[in-house]
Amino acid sequence: MGDEAVPFDDRGLAYGDGLFETVLVRDGQPVLWQAHMARLARGADRLGLPMPAAETLNALPGRAEGGLQVLKLLVTRGSGGRGYAVPDTPRPRLRWRFSPFAPMPRRWREGVHVRLCHLRLGHQPLLAGIKHLNRLENVLARREWQAPEIAEGLLRDQQDRLVEATSMNLVWRRHGRLETPCLTACGVEGTLLSTLREHLPIHACDAGIDALIEAEAAWVLNSVQGAWPLARLDDAQGGCLKRWSMGTEHRQLQRHAQALLGYPASALGEA
Amino acid sequence: MGDEAVPFDDRGLAYGDGLFETVLVRDGQPVLWQAHMARLARGADRLGLPMPAAETLNALPGRAEGGLQVLKLLVTRGSGGRGYAVPDTPRPRLRWRFSPFAPMPRRWREGVHVRLCHLRLGHQPLLAGIKHLNRLENVLARREWQAPEIAEGLLRDQQDRLVEATSMNLVWRRHGRLETPCLTACGVEGTLLSTLREHLPIHACDAGIDALIEAEAAWVLNSVQGAWPLARLDDAQGGCLKRWSMGTEHRQLQRHAQALLGYPASALGEA
Repeated sequence: MGDEAVPFDDRGLAYGDGLFETVLVRDGQPVLWQAHMARLARGADRLGLPMPAAETLNALPGRAEGGLQVLKLLVTRGSGGRGYAVPDTPRPRLRWRFSPFAPMPRRWREGVHVRLCHLRLGHQPLLAGIKHLNRLENVLARREWQAPEIAEGLLRDQQDRLVEATSMNLVWRRHGRLETPCLTACGVEGTLLSTLREHLPIHACDAGIDALIEAEAAWVLNSVQGAWPLARLDDAQGGCLKRWSMGTEHRQLQRHAQALLGYPASALGEA
Repeated sequence: MGDEAVPFDDRGLAYGDGLFETVLVRDGQPVLWQAHMARLARGADRLGLPMPAAETLNALPGRAEGGLQVLKLLVTRGSGGRGYAVPDTPRPRLRWRFSPFAPMPRRWREGVHVRLCHLRLGHQPLLAGIKHLNRLENVLARREWQAPEIAEGLLRDQQDRLVEATSMNLVWRRHGRLETPCLTACGVEGTLLSTLREHLPIHACDAGIDALIEAEAAWVLNSVQGAWPLARLDDAQGGCLKRWSMGTEHRQLQRHAQALLGYPASALGEA
């Protein structure tokens, strides 16, 4: 119910012609729902794909069981068209599924070990920022490591600029200033990041790996896991580039993230 | 049978994590089959995805009804994994469907009207050349025109280099020399193109639109439609950039293409 199979000729399957969202739901209440729906609408506008009815979408989170769940929803352009040419009147196909979810408080508290990926994201301004179904770059980047102690991989573009992590955004604090990569040419604009930017001055900038080396704190974050501070950064060969000790400079952004996602500030510990 | 629906958690649907081929089949005999299987194998190797068994694949064309059919086959990484992380032992999912097909002899004979697209392909060497399921760039480019008299749209990269058409490759003849764009950073390496290159000297080069303006002949081509000469090229606003009259310089490459695909040379007319 919601996660029915899709037909062979669905354009989401054939071409990745569609969008998705991954939403934290607590006791049937979606978290950052407006931000998710706004991004979905931006994506639909960019692809020229009609949005499913708002009442249909808004009714989804209420179907969740109690506790923490993740709602994955997927909107494709549906069937039809001739090859790449879209149908005259597309009938989008909506699918969704709930999965139980538990966050990782130790990662909030002690931070995570990340590494640089070899893969460099390509530039495509027409697809940047939105959460579309063409995710082979992320899949290939995620295949670069297996070690369970590596929590995320950091992605750069072909000009060596930092962009994001494979499934999270990236923020750092350098000389007291919060910064995050520009996402106008590639990358996904996360809903936790965009909501945090309404509360904190986080400056979008073009920056290479030096920005992280200079940073007094850095985080990977998304709307499901929250914000994980970086404790260690490796290069793409596994050599250590930098270590951070958890300190007060890590906690301000995390406290905002915890509040926005409804996670306890106490889980951040005393540091 | 073959075109069953795929489950919600199929990675082809979720991320475009898979490959496809579109094969001309005549009376149950596949055309350029070795080239299609070689490209599929290259793609599987690039994505780290096990190939379906050769005997399974080789048995597909024989299931076709008589006459001309197009076999579309699709291989995804199957279900499983955690987010972008691939499953330890992926079980690829194979789907296929036949559709009746009729070529367009008038386009062979009189040539076609094409236009430049606004969209510029992004560079991603890891995905270039193979026929993967991340095709949003092609879908967006194809949405740039509706006029039925426009047979194809030509795509350039972000450095203004010619790459391909939305679903065909591009070849031109300039000063007597056959040329085609390099496909190492973006684009799909078509099976008709790669097979033609075994028979004719077609030089891969970096070239902008000037190459087409200077060309005495040019073609868009794929393994289903064959080679259509360009009769008229428009810019992205619809203004005419160049017209070609069909002449003997168009027919040599076309005769090879017709022979490779089993289409009659007589369909090219007297020109």
